[in-house]
Amino acid sequence: MAGSSFGTIFRITTWGESHGKALGVVIDGCPAGLSLCEDDIQSYLNRRKPGTSSITTPRREGDLVEILSGVFEGKTTGTPISLLVRNTSQISGDYSEIASYYRPGHADYTFDQKYGFRDYRGGGRSSGRETIGRVAAGAIAAKLLQELGITVRAYTRSIGPVEADLSKFDADAILSTPTAMPDREADARAVAYLEQTKKDLDSSGGCMECMIQGLPAGIGDPVFEKLDANLAKAIMSIGAVKAVEIGDGCEVSRSRGSQNNDAFCMKDGTVSKKTNHAGGILGGISDGSTVTIRAHVKPTPSIYRQQDTVNRSGEEIEVCIKGRHDPIIVPRAVVVMECMTAITVLDAMMVNMSAKLDSLRDFYHD
Amino acid sequence: MAGSSFGTIFRITTWGESHGKALGVVIDGCPAGLSLCEDDIQSYLNRRKPGTSSITTPRREGDLVEILSGVFEGKTTGTPISLLVRNTSQISGDYSEIASYYRPGHADYTFDQKYGFRDYRGGGRSSGRETIGRVAAGAIAAKLLQELGITVRAYTRSIGPVEADLSKFDADAILSTPTAMPDREADARAVAYLEQTKKDLDSSGGCMECMIQGLPAGIGDPVFEKLDANLAKAIMSIGAVKAVEIGDGCEVSRSRGSQNNDAFCMKDGTVSKKTNHAGGILGGISDGSTVTIRAHVKPTPSIYRQQDTVNRSGEEIEVCIKGRHDPIIVPRAVVVMECMTAITVLDAMMVNMSAKLDSLRDFYHD
Amino acid sequence: MAGSSFGTIFRITTWGESHGKALGVVIDGCPAGLSLCEDDIQSYLNRRKPGTSSITTPRREGDLVEILSGVFEGKTTGTPISLLVRNTSQISGDYSEIASYYRPGHADYTFDQKYGFRDYRGGGRSSGRETIGRVAAGAIAAKLLQELGITVRAYTRSIGPVEADLSKFDADAILSTPTAMPDREADARAVAYLEQTKKDLDSSGGCMECMIQGLPAGIGDPVFEKLDANLAKAIMSIGAVKAVEIGDGCEVSRSRGSQNNDAFCMKDGTVSKKTNHAGGILGGISDGSTVTIRAHVKPTPSIYRQQDTVNRSGEEIEVCIKGRHDPIIVPRAVVVMECMTAITVLDAMMVNMSAKLDSLRDFYHD
Amino acid sequence: MAGSSFGTIFRITTWGESHGKALGVVIDGCPAGLSLCEDDIQSYLNRRKPGTSSITTPRREGDLVEILSGVFEGKTTGTPISLLVRNTSQISGDYSEIASYYRPGHADYTFDQKYGFRDYRGGGRSSGRETIGRVAAGAIAAKLLQELGITVRAYTRSIGPVEADLSKFDADAILSTPTAMPDREADARAVAYLEQTKKDLDSSGGCMECMIQGLPAGIGDPVFEKLDANLAKAIMSIGAVKAVEIGDGCEVSRSRGSQNNDAFCMKDGTVSKKTNHAGGILGGISDGSTVTIRAHVKPTPSIYRQQDTVNRSGEEIEVCIKGRHDPIIVPRAVVVMECMTAITVLDAMMVNMSAKLDSLRDFYHD
Repeated sequence: MAGSSFGTIFRITTWGESHGKALGVVIDGCPAGLSLCEDDIQSYLNRRKPGTSSITTPRREGDLVEILSGVFEGKTTGTPISLLVRNTSQISGDYSEIASYYRPGHADYTFDQKYGFRDYRGGGRSSGRETIGRVAAGAIAAKLLQELGITVRAYTRSIGPVEADLSKFDADAILSTPTAMPDREADARAVAYLEQTKKDLDSSGGCMECMIQGLPAGIGDPVFEKLDANLAKAIMSIGAVKAVEIGDGCEVSRSRGSQNNDAFCMKDGTVSKKTNHAGGILGGISDGSTVTIRAHVKPTPSIYRQQDTVNRSGEEIEVCIKGRHDPIIVPRAVVVMECMTAITVLDAMMVNMSAKLDSLRDFYHD
Repeated sequence: MAGSSFGTIFRITTWGESHGKALGVVIDGCPAGLSLCEDDIQSYLNRRKPGTSSITTPRREGDLVEILSGVFEGKTTGTPISLLVRNTSQISGDYSEIASYYRPGHADYTFDQKYGFRDYRGGGRSSGRETIGRVAAGAIAAKLLQELGITVRAYTRSIGPVEADLSKFDADAILSTPTAMPDREADARAVAYLEQTKKDLDSSGGCMECMIQGLPAGIGDPVFEKLDANLAKAIMSIGAVKAVEIGDGCEVSRSRGSQNNDAFCMKDGTVSKKTNHAGGILGGISDGSTVTIRAHVKPTPSIYRQQDTVNRSGEEIEVCIKGRHDPIIVPRAVVVMECMTAITVLDAMMVNMSAKLDSLRDFYHD
Repeated sequence: MAGSSFGTIFRITTWGESHGKALGVVIDGCPAGLSLCEDDIQSYLNRRKPGTSSITTPRREGDLVEILSGVFEGKTTGTPISLLVRNTSQISGDYSEIASYYRPGHADYTFDQKYGFRDYRGGGRSSGRETIGRVAAGAIAAKLLQELGITVRAYTRSIGPVEADLSKFDADAILSTPTAMPDREADARAVAYLEQTKKDLDSSGGCMECMIQGLPAGIGDPVFEKLDANLAKAIMSIGAVKAVEIGDGCEVSRSRGSQNNDAFCMKDGTVSKKTNHAGGILGGISDGSTVTIRAHVKPTPSIYRQQDTVNRSGEEIEVCIKGRHDPIIVPRAVVVMECMTAITVLDAMMVNMSAKLDSLRDFYHD
Repeated sequence: MAGSSFGTIFRITTWGESHGKALGVVIDGCPAGLSLCEDDIQSYLNRRKPGTSSITTPRREGDLVEILSGVFEGKTTGTPISLLVRNTSQISGDYSEIASYYRPGHADYTFDQKYGFRDYRGGGRSSGRETIGRVAAGAIAAKLLQELGITVRAYTRSIGPVEADLSKFDADAILSTPTAMPDREADARAVAYLEQTKKDLDSSGGCMECMIQGLPAGIGDPVFEKLDANLAKAIMSIGAVKAVEIGDGCEVSRSRGSQNNDAFCMKDGTVSKKTNHAGGILGGISDGSTVTIRAHVKPTPSIYRQQDTVNRSGEEIEVCIKGRHDPIIVPRAVVVMECMTAITVLDAMMVNMSAKLDSLRDFYHD
């Protein structure tokens, strides 16, 4: 199926396997007139790179992006933008053994069932490297949103038992700590926890959160294309995410109406809300307050401990997965969440432009 | 935007407002040759009907479905199936007051922001009655899945603090208790809790769960069209749902790889798994075990207590919402979750048929 | 397949068979704020009705449209508009014989091959009555375009050997002559030709043409979503159309660049063209001049003459198709062409609103 | 808009400008298990290359394709196939002058109107080089069809006044003559005609035709996704095509039912037709006979003669377009038509697999 595209008007199509020649993305429907250069994209790609701390894998990935089309004299032209990242340091030899069996927690078995065989090198299409295309495209979406006064920011909310204290929110910490937590103190504890996890030959799950600030009210659609529904799909489509929450999320199931309802009030002449349990979305449409999304990410499935599994011949075997693996997925996935969110919101804003006859009239009769 | 359609090959388009003339759905892409009559659909619609217990609103809704097209001599023809449910007992007079202000927790304000005005009668398009089309279409999807040996079953997992004990799973209880819980003892406690909630002029949230049994391995796509991503969208698009979990869901963020990984094993000659933390999906593709999804639903926003809000003229006011409201959304939403799940899974199965060249060859050269 | 929808943002989904209970359409993505009542639609449906002259079938079809949703207090709300037309005078008994064999020129055989069986009554889904939904939706699209100063007008260009003389263009004649020709003199000759054709127990083909006036330059996309490509699909999807031309159409293959190129010039301070061989579209995008499309329609396949064919048991037989048939399809198809054109153009205009960053900025920061 | 994609299940996304760094295509939804190497694609790309005769431009284009993803150990994996062709010999300096004015017959003006500015080098996105992506993707579609016993073959039908005589059909001539005509004698006359056209500083239109052989009955959908409607869109989306005909095409408007209907008959135990005026499609669905499509292509708009036009400042000027231009588009467009046809047909076949419940049952319970 044509399952590698996302978005309706601002539409991205990613391609590439972890150990193929290259990975990339085509962004179709990007408005004309945005200043864009490789650095705008590279700075986002660098945030998902490994090898920058004790808690990420020491594999080195260059991941240099090249703009192949859609930009002329420094500006987007409205035609598709093709972005390319060559795979440079992937050594296929590392992965030959896993061709024969199914790694627990990985997509090896399901790929074989669907397609009859698989590119087994490093996870192939279901590798974390697949997100390179998402991040490259999201960098452009985020830049466009910035032009419209909208900021999307994701960060690590918790790692195993260690939770960031948002009352001490430190935006700089997101980009400078190894965990991408907005709380340096929690970051330190999380690093310690992860080091112990590594010693245990194990891995840890975590939670990441994303906030959209400056989004006007009225974005999103009332039924299937609810803003939260599309965000849920966008975020759940990131490998290893197993739960998505909007606003108070899971807590609402224990809440009461009198607690959960956000009272409307007036603030500086505009309709506003006293609280934000809803996470900025009512009936699938943004309400003008901050949109908040949370995603729960499973522990890295590749661990050094011995595990039971089955090989392609249907024999039960015991395996130890070699190679170099992050003990946690979250810190590098934070930028992926930010990018998928940006793409979703921008697309919803573009789609929204024809919701009223008055808008069409203004547009075509200025 | 054309936001009232869902699905790629098996595609539904719902329409209708709570107090308009009628509601309905067009199902396009339903395979030819399925036996189908109105009763097949009516039995699902009856499950979302109110008025059957002390915990649902005593409003009476006939909700009789009529098949207008796509069925000939008792079988689907492959052409679009149009289903119609007339609104019979909706009295617009009940709702005239709320035209002037924004109900907390409802989509009144966001609709006005998006479209400039709204059909204010009973929630209009964002009423719970919008789900009639989803359920009518889902009944057909569920019948098709049944033909393929696949069962989709949703039920209430918890209501406020009362949780069903799944070790006592009683399938009959789902259809016969007022709460749709699969545990009669928990049902009794939940009913008591809801009666107290009503006395408090309040409402309660709850959690519902859905299981897909018999789904073959290999369904779903590896990147954006992951089976779990599409399920997340499908379920989050149901009004009032604020969180979606797959398998262990939120728990994975506190888990370790050695706990979370499901070991593969052999069972009756097939690849199987010793545990199912993943909820039946690996890398976006079904793995042959039971698929499990959970949804957290906010409390009914319409409550009898006085609330602060704002009117259309921008004045802060206090309101008491009249009318008759369910103290909880979950029991009537369970069938909606079941139906959206069925539609999503069926569509993924249809899309999957051309994943291998061998499949095309077999199909066209039998 | 979900093949009953058309359009991206302004999206219609038609349903219904010629002898089912009803036919209809759901229009999703219609902007909010358009004044709309049943009469706006009925006047278009009346143009495709039979029984108004000697050259159309005397079958009577009421075809009264009912608006079921999406309109509140006389205005569209932005939510899906469901339109219903009950089948009232279709008598299934007329068609029982044709169940057993394949009518030449009809879709009987191909439906059986695709779906295994068919609703054989009056053509079922491939009947001309399928266009009721298209026309009902097109009436709304045309009304929206009118609000934007754009007029779409189709008419009969030729019937068999009789061609309308466009130098005598008489717009009133389109709606008042039996042939829908804009030339009363040619109409008279065409009627005479068709009467002879009927006497010969035969039918005739014809050509229809459509003009879009007032369309601004810049509408359409450069590659697959070219305005002319979408118009070609829209018009070729009307049953019995076998060729579509834009501007000079087929003639270009015998033309030279020096003849075919339209020189640009200035007119009232705007860029204009001295000629319009291109039919108003350059590189898939409207150039501000009149867009012209032509469609060639095959003769009605149901004729009273004896014909050779095959029955479902694979026996060669001779048949005479009974019932009442128009000797020509074109006059009643003209309004269908007009409507499909309106839908296509309106959708392209809605999609176009986010082509420039400046447009987004203006929209969201007014 | 996201207008650079085509197809539903077998979906291609092209990108690239004539003078950018590269052009390419992503093919998503290609079934797993097809043997594929660069040569399979290169042989198709070579057919659209210039510089091979007196009637094509002597510009040299290497157009070497590189497979970047989706193929593993010589077979497609079911994941997106990314194909890249670097632009090597494009010299931007050639085109600097045309930045200031609008070439007649080109998309310069319409691009400026839509996007505010344009990549003016060599036509940018609306250059003929845009078709490189289509051809590369079409080569894969054609190879898949071949595996299913289906052949798609396009050729030049006429050039200016010179028409190929199909009764002398010579398949080898298509690939070996400069005009791509299947008639060597007509080719010789067409070459002479084009040489005269060049001397006249002019260009010529032409007509191309495509046949699909071996296509089973039952492919295509009855309403908007008719096989002929999608072919019309596919072919009309090729730059410079101004008319598309199916079967008898335009002739049907002068025909009578008794001539135009194709009588069914039995042949070798299968339902067949005595004639094929319909061009292999009835009611939008293939009928098992050869599908025939014709496209009329305008003369190359770039001619050496002086032409009137307008510059970006709104001044009327006279221009002579420099550079090297083919005197005719058709011979190099033939392979593009073949490729777009192959893509359209393959996609329709993949979509068709779930038309019957029996097909799903067979697929999932073999």
